[in-house]
Amino acid sequence: MTRSQLDSVSDLLLNSPLDLGGDVTKMRRVFDEMLGAAPLPGDVRTRTTDLGGVPAVEVRADATRPTTATVLYFHGGAYAIGSAAASAGLVSEIARRTAATALSVDYRLAPEHPFPAAVDDALAAYRALLDRGVPAGSIAVTGESAGGGLALALLLAIQDAGLPQPSSATVLSPWTDLTQSGGTMTTRADADPALTRRALQTRAADYLAGADPRTPLASPLHADLRGLPPLLIQAGGREILLDDALRLAARAAHADVPVTLQTFPGAPHVFQGFAPLVDEAAQALDQVAAFINGHIQPEGRP
Amino acid sequence: MTRSQLDSVSDLLLNSPLDLGGDVTKMRRVFDEMLGAAPLPGDVRTRTTDLGGVPAVEVRADATRPTTATVLYFHGGAYAIGSAAASAGLVSEIARRTAATALSVDYRLAPEHPFPAAVDDALAAYRALLDRGVPAGSIAVTGESAGGGLALALLLAIQDAGLPQPSSATVLSPWTDLTQSGGTMTTRADADPALTRRALQTRAADYLAGADPRTPLASPLHADLRGLPPLLIQAGGREILLDDALRLAARAAHADVPVTLQTFPGAPHVFQGFAPLVDEAAQALDQVAAFINGHIQPEGRP
Repeated sequence: MTRSQLDSVSDLLLNSPLDLGGDVTKMRRVFDEMLGAAPLPGDVRTRTTDLGGVPAVEVRADATRPTTATVLYFHGGAYAIGSAAASAGLVSEIARRTAATALSVDYRLAPEHPFPAAVDDALAAYRALLDRGVPAGSIAVTGESAGGGLALALLLAIQDAGLPQPSSATVLSPWTDLTQSGGTMTTRADADPALTRRALQTRAADYLAGADPRTPLASPLHADLRGLPPLLIQAGGREILLDDALRLAARAAHADVPVTLQTFPGAPHVFQGFAPLVDEAAQALDQVAAFINGHIQPEGRP
Repeated sequence: MTRSQLDSVSDLLLNSPLDLGGDVTKMRRVFDEMLGAAPLPGDVRTRTTDLGGVPAVEVRADATRPTTATVLYFHGGAYAIGSAAASAGLVSEIARRTAATALSVDYRLAPEHPFPAAVDDALAAYRALLDRGVPAGSIAVTGESAGGGLALALLLAIQDAGLPQPSSATVLSPWTDLTQSGGTMTTRADADPALTRRALQTRAADYLAGADPRTPLASPLHADLRGLPPLLIQAGGREILLDDALRLAARAAHADVPVTLQTFPGAPHVFQGFAPLVDEAAQALDQVAAFINGHIQPEGRP
């Protein structure tokens, strides 16, 4: 039953050794071990590369199909934890479904490298793609959790830099508001098996290092979103960040951004990472791929 | 260009003789003439029928494909104007894309028949489908504008009556709040070529006939939405009812309803009705069909 798949994943998360607000060195190891525990599917090929001086992992799957898009991906981990390598499983699910080349960016992490280091790295990676001759219309920016917030910050930085926007942006359970002011911080506190407001506050402080938590490039919810490309926003019903997604959708729609929002009741934070085990995750990723490929521009096709 | 298609439609609406808040008898004639001006495509078959004593128009298109779903449709017109026959063009576009039999309900109109007459008729029509042996899982409820609000009210009435919910509900530019409290009542007032707050207030007063405008069955935005089936909500960026859609999406997501929201910047109220002329309208209807057919339950297939 679908319902019990989501319950099982929530139990796994609840009982996991990861404490997002805990000691960074220890939690980086725990996080990478958790995400690296499952082997990548046999058709997935990864290699380390660099994008404008920023390390990245290239992920391709099902290499027999033609590549039409480039997915520029930003992993989660509250700006302090996580890595491109550890995110390769989820990224490969998107690469397979889109037939894209995915590039998962190892942006610098806090507290060693606070805001705006991550945004600078994201922009450098995007600029490097353009400099290689990859058409903006063939690029889809994607990210999960803090990486979703970073993906949105990248769009704002692209605008500030006068560069062309990518074809679309997809954000999974995005962390868009580093003030933690969403109503679901309270209403979903007991239900969320993965995140706590306290942990997010700890990591936000590490990342901001004194910057205003409403700074648009750190909290895109508080930005002027006018001019952004089409957005797909997915969120679970069992997460304190639900309101970060709902408020982003409303703000973006008010700013004349084409918005698609999809919510999945009972699903925890970044449930898409459990695609092989959970029907909703596979369905959500199918929607991600349809959205990405539906916005790739013809002139962007090789 | 896509952009100028939406501009052209907006100009048409701005210069149309329809005044939604005007004299009901006159505006009913104008509305039916406007919508009836374009002939139905050659493959469309309509016939009048009845559902539990409520008149309806059955609409089928492309009859060579097997019918898998029943679309129960509620037309717009602020609860005072419009008809199932006049809505047949838009309904046929949905029927063709879903390969469904669509039934557009001629629910009673205000001011002659105020709230809750329309809701009573909607429930009677739905109950009649179930009594005929149509599985709830094969039914998709759909509506536009006031008909979108009525579709949502029907879901609440179904719950109150202890009947099984349909497979999904799709609402296009729904009017969900008869208090007219959305922020876009102001921010989109100059942009909206079709609706004014004053006209909606006039028609809301006709429909409510003294009932509280926050009554859940009249203003589903103010209802407890828990237990509703998956919702697809589409709205244009050029309409004062945008916030009726955005707030509905957030309220429904908070109530653990699976929500898909899609916004179309530059698009006016119920732009889907201009499918043959406007690319976004055809794309939006493609999404409607994918959503409806994606939620029809296998046991509901004939």
